Amino acid sequence: MIKQYLLSPGPTTVPERVMLRMAAPMIHHRTPQFSAIFAETREMLKQIHQTTQDTLMLACSGTGAMEASIINLCSTGDTIIYVNGGKFGERWGKIAAKHGVNTIELKVDWGQAVALDDVKAALDANPQARGVFVQASETSTTTEHPIREIAALTRNRENCVTVVDAITALGVINIPMDDWGLDVVISGSQKAFMLPPGLATIALSQKAWRLAESATCSTFYFDLKTERKNQQAGKDTTAWTPAASLVIGLNEVLKMMLEEGLDNLFVRHTLLAKAARAGLAALGMTLVSSAPATSATGAFIPEGVDGGAFVKYLRDTMGVTFAGGQDALKGRILRIAHLGYYDVFDIVIAISAIEIALNRFGHPVQMGQGVAAAQQVLAERFVKV
Amino acid sequence: MIKQYLLSPGPTTVPERVMLRMAAPMIHHRTPQFSAIFAETREMLKQIHQTTQDTLMLACSGTGAMEASIINLCSTGDTIIYVNGGKFGERWGKIAAKHGVNTIELKVDWGQAVALDDVKAALDANPQARGVFVQASETSTTTEHPIREIAALTRNRENCVTVVDAITALGVINIPMDDWGLDVVISGSQKAFMLPPGLATIALSQKAWRLAESATCSTFYFDLKTERKNQQAGKDTTAWTPAASLVIGLNEVLKMMLEEGLDNLFVRHTLLAKAARAGLAALGMTLVSSAPATSATGAFIPEGVDGGAFVKYLRDTMGVTFAGGQDALKGRILRIAHLGYYDVFDIVIAISAIEIALNRFGHPVQMGQGVAAAQQVLAERFVKV
Repeated sequence: MIKQYLLSPGPTTVPERVMLRMAAPMIHHRTPQFSAIFAETREMLKQIHQTTQDTLMLACSGTGAMEASIINLCSTGDTIIYVNGGKFGERWGKIAAKHGVNTIELKVDWGQAVALDDVKAALDANPQARGVFVQASETSTTTEHPIREIAALTRNRENCVTVVDAITALGVINIPMDDWGLDVVISGSQKAFMLPPGLATIALSQKAWRLAESATCSTFYFDLKTERKNQQAGKDTTAWTPAASLVIGLNEVLKMMLEEGLDNLFVRHTLLAKAARAGLAALGMTLVSSAPATSATGAFIPEGVDGGAFVKYLRDTMGVTFAGGQDALKGRILRIAHLGYYDVFDIVIAISAIEIALNRFGHPVQMGQGVAAAQQVLAERFVKV
Repeated sequence: MIKQYLLSPGPTTVPERVMLRMAAPMIHHRTPQFSAIFAETREMLKQIHQTTQDTLMLACSGTGAMEASIINLCSTGDTIIYVNGGKFGERWGKIAAKHGVNTIELKVDWGQAVALDDVKAALDANPQARGVFVQASETSTTTEHPIREIAALTRNRENCVTVVDAITALGVINIPMDDWGLDVVISGSQKAFMLPPGLATIALSQKAWRLAESATCSTFYFDLKTERKNQQAGKDTTAWTPAASLVIGLNEVLKMMLEEGLDNLFVRHTLLAKAARAGLAALGMTLVSSAPATSATGAFIPEGVDGGAFVKYLRDTMGVTFAGGQDALKGRILRIAHLGYYDVFDIVIAISAIEIALNRFGHPVQMGQGVAAAQQVLAERFVKV
């Protein structure tokens, strides 16, 4: 018997009340019953996206919504600027290339946030650019980029938008789309929405919808204008078959998130991230990122410990699933998730497991040292008596 | 949002695979389909009871099976000896009184095991006694009684048996019924069987069945001779309607327990208990028991901390449900469960929660100190690399 703990940055743990809601018998998606759920979900989704614009639900993974953002805003031969600071940033370039969209790549060392001066210089050098495409939180390096400041740079450029992949950021940190003038914000179900994968959300500003009018990249499934017509109030349906059980799950999840309240949601995630960093630091581990994310924390596995074997041991022997590193970081780091249905004792488990595993790998650390540092932070979550 | 952790000694956490099995559509209990499951379950149950005798399943709580043991072995006017070292020991006396069965009470200070000399003296002074009734593990005080040694005292007395309430002991510690000459062994579903409450199991030795022939206490529902006829191989049913979903759950649970193996099961529980004791000791907390149980650990809440408020705070503010104390121990102790679906990180959570809560209650303990002591023990569960 090994009890399993899922501490990876997507998929994350699905809350019990959401699992039970999704386990109810299927209802047909072309019915007033489903439309009522759909409409309620859409209105709650606006609150999480912090926008008065339409928030669309797409039956696809986050990558599908990333592609939708490019092909609905661009035509073949257009140019976009994109931030490549990790696996997900890199993906903007790969998608654009498939559609003949030219790219200006802002390559950033893994673990660093993009420098605003570089974004500004790229915009100045490429006045024809349709937009800046960037991750709010680059999951592969557990790093946050300064999306608010980037949006300020594009705001007054007439045909240039800021497109934010907020897949591991929405519902984790404050991303007020309308206030900050973000033009496109994308998220996915298996992150802070605490759902199984298969559903993406996307919201566009008026400026982005205007660009969409003249975009001619080919798409049938991802035509956001068609989706918008179907998903609007009164119609309350989707252009193609929706991921119905996930929409129903999202309905429940959004209720949980709004019951907790956005501010409390951000405070909780911020505290968990701070505790994870404190725990890892107390174990002498170095963070991957100089602008560490609130959704997940990456740390280098100590020299002399086989990183691949270490993450495998934690998963297969101890039952604690973290994410390892990708590409250049493969075998060198582990990533602890703390987005979505995570709380105090998930961080305690994470640090405790790493402490025990380091000792079992012949890398002695003092038992309790990391947990103690994490607990000092985590105690703030509970009122003093 | 508060994540919930159930660390009480029954009900305990139900494993996912068991919940899923029990969530399947109901089947009728008077069918070959159910009988096949029932027969398979009964045979596996014999392995956990470590007996070749019939193991009966009763649709009742453990208390029902305790009553069944008295009324199937005794007649009004008979005398029994019982060990009263806590809430559950006391219950033997209350049941006997309802049926006009005379009792010799061996009262034991709460937190202590019964002294064998006292059992022997009672047997010698009451040669007519039909049996000694005792808990293997007295949950209210988290104490184990020496059942093996008690059975040795009754073995050669012709009409006297040893009846063991093993409700929080079977599947936790080694209780080889046949080897040790235990005459009746009782368990319940919501303990090491990791199920919801509502199902009890009971096995009788040949000697006990012989006593049952002459017992005349009145009962209809709890007539074990009738149950035995129905539950035997070939009939594979129950006298009255069975708790069918719990029997199906038990079928799955027994597969899990046998896959893990009895020896591994005992080693795991022993390690968790040892770690809990180490963690509490490192926090300066005193154990309730001088013969501490393997199923649950009770400790006194430090002076100056309101025990009732403390356990309530852990449950309602921190989401961690322990048991408090009963009767004389009410408001003075907490009890951590580690029987059934519990593993390493449940103990880490338990000790971490107590550490944090003590600090929040103005009783400073050094963060990480208890967790570190528990981890030192728990690390043994994982192989060295």
